[in-house]
Amino acid sequence: MAQGEGGPAALGALLATAVTALADGAAERGGPVPAGTPGELAARWEKRLGTPLPEHGTGAAAALAEVTRLLAAGAADPADPACAGHLHCPPLAVAVAADMAASALNPSLDSWDQAPAATTVERSVVAALAGLAGYDPAAASGVVTTGGTESNLMGLLLARDHAVARHSGVSAARSGIPAGVRPRVLCSRAAHFSIARAAGFIGLGEDAVIAVPTDSGHRMDPAALDAELTALRRRGELPVAIVATAGTTDLGAVDPLPRIAGIAAAHGTRLHVDAAYGGGALFSDRLRLLLAGLEAADTITLDLHKFGWQPVAAGVFLARERAAFEPLDRQVAYLNPEDDEEAGYTSLLGHSLRTTRRPDAAKIAVTLKALGRTGLGALVDRCHDLARHAAGAIAAHPRLALYAPPTLSTVVFRYVPADVPEDVVDAVNARLRRRLLREGLAVVGRTTAPDPTTGREAVQLKLTLLNPDTEPRTVDALLAAVVRAGERETP
Amino acid sequence: MAQGEGGPAALGALLATAVTALADGAAERGGPVPAGTPGELAARWEKRLGTPLPEHGTGAAAALAEVTRLLAAGAADPADPACAGHLHCPPLAVAVAADMAASALNPSLDSWDQAPAATTVERSVVAALAGLAGYDPAAASGVVTTGGTESNLMGLLLARDHAVARHSGVSAARSGIPAGVRPRVLCSRAAHFSIARAAGFIGLGEDAVIAVPTDSGHRMDPAALDAELTALRRRGELPVAIVATAGTTDLGAVDPLPRIAGIAAAHGTRLHVDAAYGGGALFSDRLRLLLAGLEAADTITLDLHKFGWQPVAAGVFLARERAAFEPLDRQVAYLNPEDDEEAGYTSLLGHSLRTTRRPDAAKIAVTLKALGRTGLGALVDRCHDLARHAAGAIAAHPRLALYAPPTLSTVVFRYVPADVPEDVVDAVNARLRRRLLREGLAVVGRTTAPDPTTGREAVQLKLTLLNPDTEPRTVDALLAAVVRAGERETP
Repeated sequence: MAQGEGGPAALGALLATAVTALADGAAERGGPVPAGTPGELAARWEKRLGTPLPEHGTGAAAALAEVTRLLAAGAADPADPACAGHLHCPPLAVAVAADMAASALNPSLDSWDQAPAATTVERSVVAALAGLAGYDPAAASGVVTTGGTESNLMGLLLARDHAVARHSGVSAARSGIPAGVRPRVLCSRAAHFSIARAAGFIGLGEDAVIAVPTDSGHRMDPAALDAELTALRRRGELPVAIVATAGTTDLGAVDPLPRIAGIAAAHGTRLHVDAAYGGGALFSDRLRLLLAGLEAADTITLDLHKFGWQPVAAGVFLARERAAFEPLDRQVAYLNPEDDEEAGYTSLLGHSLRTTRRPDAAKIAVTLKALGRTGLGALVDRCHDLARHAAGAIAAHPRLALYAPPTLSTVVFRYVPADVPEDVVDAVNARLRRRLLREGLAVVGRTTAPDPTTGREAVQLKLTLLNPDTEPRTVDALLAAVVRAGERETP
Repeated sequence: MAQGEGGPAALGALLATAVTALADGAAERGGPVPAGTPGELAARWEKRLGTPLPEHGTGAAAALAEVTRLLAAGAADPADPACAGHLHCPPLAVAVAADMAASALNPSLDSWDQAPAATTVERSVVAALAGLAGYDPAAASGVVTTGGTESNLMGLLLARDHAVARHSGVSAARSGIPAGVRPRVLCSRAAHFSIARAAGFIGLGEDAVIAVPTDSGHRMDPAALDAELTALRRRGELPVAIVATAGTTDLGAVDPLPRIAGIAAAHGTRLHVDAAYGGGALFSDRLRLLLAGLEAADTITLDLHKFGWQPVAAGVFLARERAAFEPLDRQVAYLNPEDDEEAGYTSLLGHSLRTTRRPDAAKIAVTLKALGRTGLGALVDRCHDLARHAAGAIAAHPRLALYAPPTLSTVVFRYVPADVPEDVVDAVNARLRRRLLREGLAVVGRTTAPDPTTGREAVQLKLTLLNPDTEPRTVDALLAAVVRAGERETP
């Protein structure tokens, strides 16, 4: 066992084994991602892994070294500057060490008596982040989640129960959605897919989502939002929530929060802001103005495994008023009986969709204290600088086309071979990305974005720059590799 | 950063700092749980934690040592034999070390190019556990989850979409639950509260759950289940799923799976088995017969952070047929475009409710290989032996009353002072448990259970024995502490 008699010594030795295996695996990989086709690689790894559940074990050190080395050799390593495909950050060593301590102690936040101090640490972290978001920490509340998808799900779920209770006087959690009620959710066309997915999960149906048009900057059009709200009221539908995005996944676009908040207030509709990506700007003196108006949101999604450099998971869900969590309240005889709660043994069960819950707040607390707001802000700014550098280099290159100027740390662009039709350009970009993967040279992102003139959804490449240690010249080399791969994939 | 140039060296040093802080904090605590009232403790810890988000950081080593020591000093440590309140296991050192490696590499399982080898490892772990559960690993599928609550939610969500599609020919995920359809879920009265909660989350409403009576062994009564299914059909309602429990939280009761599976088949209703706790019996030659019939389930919840000795989270959701996951299928331009999937870059996005997803499969893979089935089975058996020992000692004690013989590793009982009314007995048991916590002596569980003669829900104490290193004499000492605390709390 990791703790108790002899625990720390055994744990220390095994951690050293794992660190060595990580280094060995990284050396074996030799680049940002292992070279090979996915089929070849999977076959090789399955063979190397052998029987995952043998009758008799091979012992702790051997199994740990073997599987860890395999995982490292077969990783897409976000600490390599050429691994820049996704909102997939290199974690800070200090956060990894703190996360290890959380694993070793293994508190579970569903009851005080499984997590006495961890409960305090989560409450403190949530209060600090609520304050950073502009909330009154004494009135606000929140919880650490597995990420933006869970936080957005919580935002919609609590909004559903709030809206249905106000409209029909019944609890949707208890009785479902009353007959004749047509709940709707409004977000921009560029919102994350998890919004529609959450609407599907909670019984509204994905069709309940109204995708509001965006302006030329890919931000929700407030006039269109207002018109949609007015129209749905006229149709007798129930607006459950407006979901604004602060930092879209591809372009980092931030919806106009102050105007949207005004519209939400005018229509008496709850406002949830998905700041999973853009929330990191709160640390930065330079970028935090982008998030002005965030404090008017009823609920907020943040994600410290994006800007925040935490190992997954480090999602955060915040509510301006503690009362927003009421639909999740729950008394359970074996977890939080009333007389225990009255005696001060408060549980966080009613703050989460989960029951057993790992204290991901521990690594966040250590990181916030270790770096401070300005330390994290400096890392955010470096990534923003890298994106601006990349955008400049792309704009200056004859065979690369920048899709839009970067807002945060993503850069969307494409390779444009001379004299080929549009659908071939799409295919070339898709293929060049797979070539870079297959050759173990780079992890570049891809997406689609509407052509500004024709509106056609075109395949685009994307750099997501989340490694503050990356040098501008390394970004230049990455772009040169993209161009070379593009040349080889052009018919 | 934890990886890349200089990463492993920095990580190694910080891990050593954390291990030292864990040991220092445990020494400071000096027992299973810190002594003090929750209010006193929270005030002390808040002061010690200070500002969680200062303007300027205090540096990695200082912040890590300080917060880790606080967490350890304020832990309810499951590695201490007197910490036996919940399904809250002491984690294996090897699993903690593997979990650290997963944090350092930080793969995310929502796309291949964030987790090449981790994708293979999760597939292998899931196949091995599917085989252990009696499924055909080639036909089955599954995913690692945050725990039983998420797995049960997935089971109901997929069952909802399956049942509605078959009944009405529409997708509930897309369009919500059609008007006039009244979906129902059937589970026993002793099922975990997460079943009703999940029904509330997914729009069925908690009232959709029919609580089927239990027999004298706290197992679902199959005749009553059959009658309920027949009656709801007659009322024109739609059975979405039967949820059987294999190992209830309090008593470890296992519903009669073969008979329930027969009823599910006869009614054409999906069967989900919540084996979050009892699933661990699959490792044990002695106990696995308890789970006979599990292979007839359509979907299964397992939890390796209970029996399995993993740090949280290590939940597993399994489906007998891969097709069960179809309602979660999702094509996203930036994650899994069709041509990438065709080229072999498969993503696990459509297997999970989450998007970004930590590879909790890594630590499970290492543990399964390190200990093997028989190694884990031996740990399960030791906990079962401890429960039987505890039950014997309780039965033999004049002031302790055993509620039921143990099935797995929980023992439900109460302290019975002489000559006091029943409601005072309840209060004494609740207070003695809080006294043990307050004095830092023990973490004992509590619950309520119906009195076999009067049916009154009486407060009971509970030992959840998940520490295989505990000696029988330590259990005796724990029971003696319960009796002493009971004497002091008796008016």
